[in-house]
Amino acid sequence: MQRGHSTASGRPEIVYGPKIKELRVTPIAVTDPPLLNSVGIHAPYALRTVIELVTDDNICGISEIPGNVEINGLLDQSEAVIIGADPFQLNKLRTDLIGRFGQDQRDTRGVNPWDDRKLVHVFSALEVACLDIQGKICNRPVVDLLGGRCREQVSFAAYLFYKPKGAGGALGYKVDPRAISWAAARQTSAESAEEIVDQAQSMCNEFGFKSIKLKGGVFPPEIEVDTIHKLRIAFGPEVPLRFDPNGVWTVETSIKYGRQMEEILEYLEDPTRGQEGMAAVRKALKIPLATNMCTTSFEDIPPGIAHGSEDIILSDHHFWGGLRESISLGKICRTFEKGLSMHSNSHLGISLTAMVHMAAAIPNLTYDLDTHYPWQSEEVIAGGRVKFEDGKVAVPREPGLGISLDRQVLGQLHENYKMCGFARRDDTLEMQKIQPGWKFKATKW
Amino acid sequence: MQRGHSTASGRPEIVYGPKIKELRVTPIAVTDPPLLNSVGIHAPYALRTVIELVTDDNICGISEIPGNVEINGLLDQSEAVIIGADPFQLNKLRTDLIGRFGQDQRDTRGVNPWDDRKLVHVFSALEVACLDIQGKICNRPVVDLLGGRCREQVSFAAYLFYKPKGAGGALGYKVDPRAISWAAARQTSAESAEEIVDQAQSMCNEFGFKSIKLKGGVFPPEIEVDTIHKLRIAFGPEVPLRFDPNGVWTVETSIKYGRQMEEILEYLEDPTRGQEGMAAVRKALKIPLATNMCTTSFEDIPPGIAHGSEDIILSDHHFWGGLRESISLGKICRTFEKGLSMHSNSHLGISLTAMVHMAAAIPNLTYDLDTHYPWQSEEVIAGGRVKFEDGKVAVPREPGLGISLDRQVLGQLHENYKMCGFARRDDTLEMQKIQPGWKFKATKW
Repeated sequence: MQRGHSTASGRPEIVYGPKIKELRVTPIAVTDPPLLNSVGIHAPYALRTVIELVTDDNICGISEIPGNVEINGLLDQSEAVIIGADPFQLNKLRTDLIGRFGQDQRDTRGVNPWDDRKLVHVFSALEVACLDIQGKICNRPVVDLLGGRCREQVSFAAYLFYKPKGAGGALGYKVDPRAISWAAARQTSAESAEEIVDQAQSMCNEFGFKSIKLKGGVFPPEIEVDTIHKLRIAFGPEVPLRFDPNGVWTVETSIKYGRQMEEILEYLEDPTRGQEGMAAVRKALKIPLATNMCTTSFEDIPPGIAHGSEDIILSDHHFWGGLRESISLGKICRTFEKGLSMHSNSHLGISLTAMVHMAAAIPNLTYDLDTHYPWQSEEVIAGGRVKFEDGKVAVPREPGLGISLDRQVLGQLHENYKMCGFARRDDTLEMQKIQPGWKFKATKW
Repeated sequence: MQRGHSTASGRPEIVYGPKIKELRVTPIAVTDPPLLNSVGIHAPYALRTVIELVTDDNICGISEIPGNVEINGLLDQSEAVIIGADPFQLNKLRTDLIGRFGQDQRDTRGVNPWDDRKLVHVFSALEVACLDIQGKICNRPVVDLLGGRCREQVSFAAYLFYKPKGAGGALGYKVDPRAISWAAARQTSAESAEEIVDQAQSMCNEFGFKSIKLKGGVFPPEIEVDTIHKLRIAFGPEVPLRFDPNGVWTVETSIKYGRQMEEILEYLEDPTRGQEGMAAVRKALKIPLATNMCTTSFEDIPPGIAHGSEDIILSDHHFWGGLRESISLGKICRTFEKGLSMHSNSHLGISLTAMVHMAAAIPNLTYDLDTHYPWQSEEVIAGGRVKFEDGKVAVPREPGLGISLDRQVLGQLHENYKMCGFARRDDTLEMQKIQPGWKFKATKW
């Protein structure tokens, strides 16, 4: 008795758009300064991997993820899945990747507190490149495929690091004489509170940042807390301050020193390890706690809520499975009345631009975002380095991500990669080159 | 020292796509049979509202929501927000609607257990029509804008209802002599278990459904539980059964009668009211509990998790704020290891098609969905009623929703609306017309 309706029913596959015909995976090495953290020190090169997907009608989509020889290997192998794929079928892509690489790569969290499941990275790399292609097909910026822009600019924070003496090249770190970046000019060390204040002033002057984050976990708590107080004196209450001891404090240390910063911090990031420890600190302090270490995947969210581990999640599309999953993370944070900000690693303009599209599409991503971008000098996107105005990056209006590759620079940075000999990030090994016998301790103070 | 990057920065607004120039809101009335539920009985007409958005280059997007004179009024007023809008800027649309109608319409949940905040409905109506336009602009089905298809067909369940004697027209319900639908042919009553089994067999034969849901809360528990057992005997263990007492049982009644169905139900839906009551029932039974009454909005999710109220959320894009929000609901359910299925009201093919696109894009929406569709005879989309094969609807491959309006039928159904005199759904009032003095009780047994 039903009348036939013209909508598809049991019909054969219709080819209604371009398919991906080529995957290019290019590992690159970007000169990086000796930035200190609890795990050690940044190596002279930060590794990134640039992904290009090309459709059979020659639309190219790009993305960038943290470089790692194991993940690059999986990316190469994902050719079997991505070639011939429709760039709109992101759900199928995820299923196919799991099918190709199996349960192991999906479920193994590894030893790091962040989510280093390789498939999360591989999927995020391919997803961003597919969204770039989708935007170009639809003649729309990626932000518009994510629900549309909530804002016209995205604000970032100054990200301060302690740096050892000899930071100006004596440690073997490269200073490109052709580079005219702030980072290349900034070869001074930063071991004292005064030097950090100077770093902050220089960075804020250059980029216009309106809030400041200090990476800690390097010196004893009293020194780092004193640095925060000196920053407050220098910048006043109108500049929000954040501090990240990188998880190396005990609960007791976190509470003791957290109290000394209660009146002046916008948030305290990962003072201690683990959801239970964070929850204990959170109960004792009047200050919001942020994390990119204790709640770093969707699986971590239910226990994080049960424990009450954090007030703010620091998202990162590379670690949370792409831009669309990060949009859902934003909705989860809104639902559970958590704040949302954004974590960063050393990166170039492709990651930065993807971060900007995503941040622009999330109503509640209202904190200034972290970025290491000022610390890099090179740029792989055509037109050179992304411009900050008043600490903000304008949300692109061009189709897709709105950027393209400078293939000459890509080639140079790939040569850097082959020359530098690094296979993965290892800040502890780098530290041991400078201080033989230096050991990483998960809990230091 | 920064070099200018070519990506947009402070440039004036670029017009990069069509804008919406026209909003048409057409209330319609669809003949509906006398289906019984705990609140009363379906009126002879189910009210729906058809929304059309037309762009300045004459692309038309459509959607359908539950009809209600108050919501229709707000939809008319939303013209001030939607005219001139970019159909990709859904985040801005939500913000602008809140700005236009204020806090009241956003926050008032009303007296119903479901989320009847008017702005949720208005936004979902406009969002689906905008996504239809987006798909037409991008030459892609809506499912592809939601992450792509996880499946090629979406499965639905047979939705059984008790019907009073005189169901064949003696109660004043219309039987269109021209209609050749299953519903028009099915004028028999269904008050006994045997009649429900007959209804189930007839509906499954016609549509090929592979699972069955019975709407209860009408007769005393022992009668309805007996009906479930009779369905089990008739259909065997390979056909999943669901039962929905519509929230009118006490916790004790729910546990007592729930135990009698533990071995045979796929899930028990809303046996009792409220998250705390549901949690108490859930603790006592080995059977999964589903809800579209105790957890019906994102605000309900945190307390629902804290209480442990349900195993399965019955989504509904009309009540959860559109297709994109429903995708995030899917991610929340995956994150918290809840199941996800789909609720329905009386509806036509526009809502059905939107449900199909959304269900196809959610990896974990694997339960057969509820639909009232077999109970309607009319259809407002061109080509007539949507076809079910083996209980499934094929996911459209055409751009946008993949459907268009039959304007002649739309006009006829709008005439029905003007003639029928209903302003909103009121099943209790309808029941009182048949049984004078009949009273709704939130808890009956």
